[in-house]
Amino acid sequence: MTIADLGEFGLIAAIASRLPRGDRTLVGIGDDAAVLATPDGRVVATMDVLVEGRHFRRDWSSATDIGGKAAAQSLADLAAMGAAPVALLVGFAAPGHLPIAWTEELFSGMAAESARAGATVAGGDVVSAGEITLAITALGDLAGRDPVTRAGARPGDVLAVAGVLGHAAAGYALLSAGLTEPASLIAAHRSPRPRYEAGLAAAALGATSMTDLSDGLVQDAGHLAEASGVLADIDPALLPQDPALAAAESALASADSAAGPAGRRPGGGVASGPLSWMLTGGEDHGLAATFPAGTSLPADWAVVGRIREGRGVWVDGQSFQGSAGWDHFRS
Amino acid sequence: MTIADLGEFGLIAAIASRLPRGDRTLVGIGDDAAVLATPDGRVVATMDVLVEGRHFRRDWSSATDIGGKAAAQSLADLAAMGAAPVALLVGFAAPGHLPIAWTEELFSGMAAESARAGATVAGGDVVSAGEITLAITALGDLAGRDPVTRAGARPGDVLAVAGVLGHAAAGYALLSAGLTEPASLIAAHRSPRPRYEAGLAAAALGATSMTDLSDGLVQDAGHLAEASGVLADIDPALLPQDPALAAAESALASADSAAGPAGRRPGGGVASGPLSWMLTGGEDHGLAATFPAGTSLPADWAVVGRIREGRGVWVDGQSFQGSAGWDHFRS
Repeated sequence: MTIADLGEFGLIAAIASRLPRGDRTLVGIGDDAAVLATPDGRVVATMDVLVEGRHFRRDWSSATDIGGKAAAQSLADLAAMGAAPVALLVGFAAPGHLPIAWTEELFSGMAAESARAGATVAGGDVVSAGEITLAITALGDLAGRDPVTRAGARPGDVLAVAGVLGHAAAGYALLSAGLTEPASLIAAHRSPRPRYEAGLAAAALGATSMTDLSDGLVQDAGHLAEASGVLADIDPALLPQDPALAAAESALASADSAAGPAGRRPGGGVASGPLSWMLTGGEDHGLAATFPAGTSLPADWAVVGRIREGRGVWVDGQSFQGSAGWDHFRS
Repeated sequence: MTIADLGEFGLIAAIASRLPRGDRTLVGIGDDAAVLATPDGRVVATMDVLVEGRHFRRDWSSATDIGGKAAAQSLADLAAMGAAPVALLVGFAAPGHLPIAWTEELFSGMAAESARAGATVAGGDVVSAGEITLAITALGDLAGRDPVTRAGARPGDVLAVAGVLGHAAAGYALLSAGLTEPASLIAAHRSPRPRYEAGLAAAALGATSMTDLSDGLVQDAGHLAEASGVLADIDPALLPQDPALAAAESALASADSAAGPAGRRPGGGVASGPLSWMLTGGEDHGLAATFPAGTSLPADWAVVGRIREGRGVWVDGQSFQGSAGWDHFRS
C-alpha cells in the first residue's frame, strides 16, 4: 500500500492516528493552522530541512530512526536557546510510490523523540515530490528565562560541551566502510539522543552563550566565537579518551589493510581518527556553551576549553588547520 | 554566480541582507532558533511545502512572484484562524547550480508579501537538493481573540467568501494553453493577494468557522461542513458574474477552435468554464467563513450560500457531482 493509494487526506488521517495530542495543543491537525500554548509570550522557532541521500539513507537507517533523528535535530536547536520544546510542524514531500508503512514509522519516530523532549507533532503538510524531503519546524517556550544566544561569550568564560563528541561521525565512517561495529557508534549516527534537559539546566545556571553541535565542535564553537566577538581556545587534552572511538579507528584500519592500498578510502588515515571526529564531526546534536569561570557545572557538562580575547577558534594553542566541518553546498 | 559558489553560509548572508528585521523579532537569523514576540501566550502555526514543477514553474513565474505566492499561501492560513501574522521561517532546498540572483529575488518576494501582512522572514534553513523545494512556516498571534476553527458552523449561518474566486484557476488554464490574456487572471495565478485583514475582521465580527480557499470553494466548504457536522449549501446564483472569467472562457474557446479537434486540451469545454473555476479552482487564497444569520458583513465579504442540517456540500440544491478540487497525490 503506497501513499498514492491513500491520497493526501487519507495519508494525513493515517499519520494523525499515530500522533498523540499534546496538552499544549489547543487546535491540532486538521485545521488551517495549529494553535499552541506558549505562555511565556515569546515563541522560540527553528526549522531544518532534510533530503534523502544527503541527510539520510533508507538503506542505512529505519524509518523510525530517520524520523527520530530529524526531530532531534530541530528539538536540539530549541534546547540550545534554553527553551522547552512544545511542538513540531512537519512538512513531508515524497513520491507517491512510497509505502504507507514507511511513512507511518517515520512519523512514529518523530513522535517518540518529541515525547522524550516533552513535545508533540501538532501539524504540517504533505505533498508529492520526486525526492523524499522533510522540513521540521520546532516551537518552544522560554518559561520566563532569557534566551541563550550565541552572542554572549566573554573572555575568561569556560567552554563546555554536553553529550557525546564524534560518535555520529565515527558511525558514519563505519557505515561508509560497510562495518557494523562498534554498534554504539552506528546507533549514534542513526539515532542521536540530545540531552535537551542539559540546555535548560545551562540556561538556568547562567550560560553566557550556547549552540547545538550540528556542524562539528570546531565549526560550532567558531559560530559562538564569531557571534560573541571572542576567541574559542579548545584544549584537546580536555577531550575524553573515548574507547568506542579508538575501537572504530582500529576496525577501520583493519578493513583498510584487508582491502590493500587500492581499497583505501579517500579521507582515511590521520584525518579520520578519534580527534578528528571529536573536533569536526557533526550530527551528535550535543550542546556547546560558555559559562562564567568558577560556575559549578552539573555532570552533563564537561569543560573543553576557554574563551579569550581575539577572534576565531584555536585548537591546542593555534588556529585550527583543515576542514572545520560541514557546508551543505560544498561538501 | 550560483548558490554553490557562495556556499551555505555565504548564501544565508546574502539572503539575510535582503530581509528587513521585524520589531517582534527578538532574536533573528544567525542563531540556533528565532525568538518572536507572541504576547497573546498562544502561537498560531502553519506549514506549507511547495515543489518546483508541481506548485510553481520557473518558466511561468518570476522568482519574486513565486516567493510572494508561497508566502501568501501560509500567511492566508493564519488569517483564516483570525490570527495576525508575525513571522515566517523558510526552508529552502535547491541544486547548487541555481543562480544566486534567482534565490535573492525569491526571498525578496517573500519579504514583500510578508510586509503586506505585517510580518517578516525571521529564520529558516538552506540545504542542497535535486529539486527546488520551499517549506514555509508562518507564525501568528491572536491578540486576545479566540481562534476561528473550521468546526463552529451551525445550521442557519450564512456562508460567505472574501477575495476573488476562480481567478488563479483561470490563469492556470490560460497559461497551460499558451495564452497571456486576460492579464489580471495570469497575475492572479502568479501572485495571489489574500485579504489578510478580512480574516481578522471576520474573527472580530464573530465568524463561527473559517478556512482559506486553497483547494477550491466546494472542497474547502466541504472541510468546514465536515469539521462542523453540517451541510454547506452553495447557491450559484449568488456567485458573481465575472467579466474576466467570461473573457478567459472566450479566449480559450478561440484557441481551441484555431487548433482544431486534434488540438483540444483534455479537461477543456464545460468543465473549465467560469462556474467550474469558481467552484473548484484553488490557489486564490481567499477566505470562506460562516456567520450567524443577520450579521452585517463588511464589503470584503459576499454571501454565497447557507449552512443547513445535514452533511457535505450542495450546489444549487443537490450534491456536487464531479471532481471537487485538488489532491496532491492523485491529481
